[in-house]
Amino acid sequence: MSPAPDIQPVELSRSYLLLNHGPTVLVTSAHGRRRNVMAAAWAMPLDFNPARMLVVVDKNTHTRTLIDASGEFALCIPSREQARATLKVGTDSGRDEDKFQASGLSTFPASKIGAPLVAGCLGWLECKVLPEPHNQQAYDLFIGEVVAAWAAPDVFSGNRWHFPSEGRRSIHYLAGGSFFATGEGFSVSEPEPS
Amino acid sequence: MSPAPDIQPVELSRSYLLLNHGPTVLVTSAHGRRRNVMAAAWAMPLDFNPARMLVVVDKNTHTRTLIDASGEFALCIPSREQARATLKVGTDSGRDEDKFQASGLSTFPASKIGAPLVAGCLGWLECKVLPEPHNQQAYDLFIGEVVAAWAAPDVFSGNRWHFPSEGRRSIHYLAGGSFFATGEGFSVSEPEPS
Repeated sequence: MSPAPDIQPVELSRSYLLLNHGPTVLVTSAHGRRRNVMAAAWAMPLDFNPARMLVVVDKNTHTRTLIDASGEFALCIPSREQARATLKVGTDSGRDEDKFQASGLSTFPASKIGAPLVAGCLGWLECKVLPEPHNQQAYDLFIGEVVAAWAAPDVFSGNRWHFPSEGRRSIHYLAGGSFFATGEGFSVSEPEPS
Repeated sequence: MSPAPDIQPVELSRSYLLLNHGPTVLVTSAHGRRRNVMAAAWAMPLDFNPARMLVVVDKNTHTRTLIDASGEFALCIPSREQARATLKVGTDSGRDEDKFQASGLSTFPASKIGAPLVAGCLGWLECKVLPEPHNQQAYDLFIGEVVAAWAAPDVFSGNRWHFPSEGRRSIHYLAGGSFFATGEGFSVSEPEPS
């Protein structure tokens, strides 16, 4: 069952399409009564089937504590309208405050994990940690098995992105509060064999 | 010394900026008299300092054979003008042909590794494999220590991207020959504490 009325499931084997173009994500996590959200520019697909994603989560973050404790996280793909909130949750720490509240991000429950999903995003990947203690310790690198994937149908349907407006585009973080919006789509066909 | 007259060094600790926005890359490799190039949408930074990058390279590729043999690769960031060639080298195999020649991509020598760099790209990361046999075998996942980084000054200087024209933008692969260009840059400032 869809966790919210206005979102649609994405086949797990196609869920890599949500991250293939390299957007910045919001990483959500929860354990017990604590929950958190942080921004991550370093997230990407690792495999199609089983669908697996990579994300780098620093040891010093509260998100890391919650992921280590719960073995779960979600990757939520924010829109340009959410860029300011994305910067804020990428800068502040959630140890001392509820960053959802502080950044104005609201949430809805995920379908298969305890971490909440951020409302208003473009897509969502619910992930369970595939334990790789060496990667996690040495590189802060986590592998997530995608257990459910969702998209907002105004921006992604039929396994294709189609951004309807500037505010509903995905974003790509650079540094110092600077982003790129995802730009113009274009297709090239394979040239004839030479 | 710069390996080509029209490119500039990028500080290693800032070299993540070349990949932070998630562009698709060309992976070059060489061993003995063989060399190859493939496209990879799954590449991203792993660490700032030491500068390390991740890239997924399938076991069935000729590139994999060359990286396994040489312990080196380069990540080259193609421009929109190179999208057709990027698709071609992402589709064909280099076992039976020289993909540089077949795709019309020319090269110049790297400064610290044997793999060639693709001419006309926007940026280049010369990498030595940080051996992690389990990741390589189980996930086709490689960690590269960046040993040199370069950018084309028309698109990247002072540690900032500034795309001068549509054809000189970086690109983000989706599927089936479809890409997004890197779009409009914008900045948001952190809101005042609430």
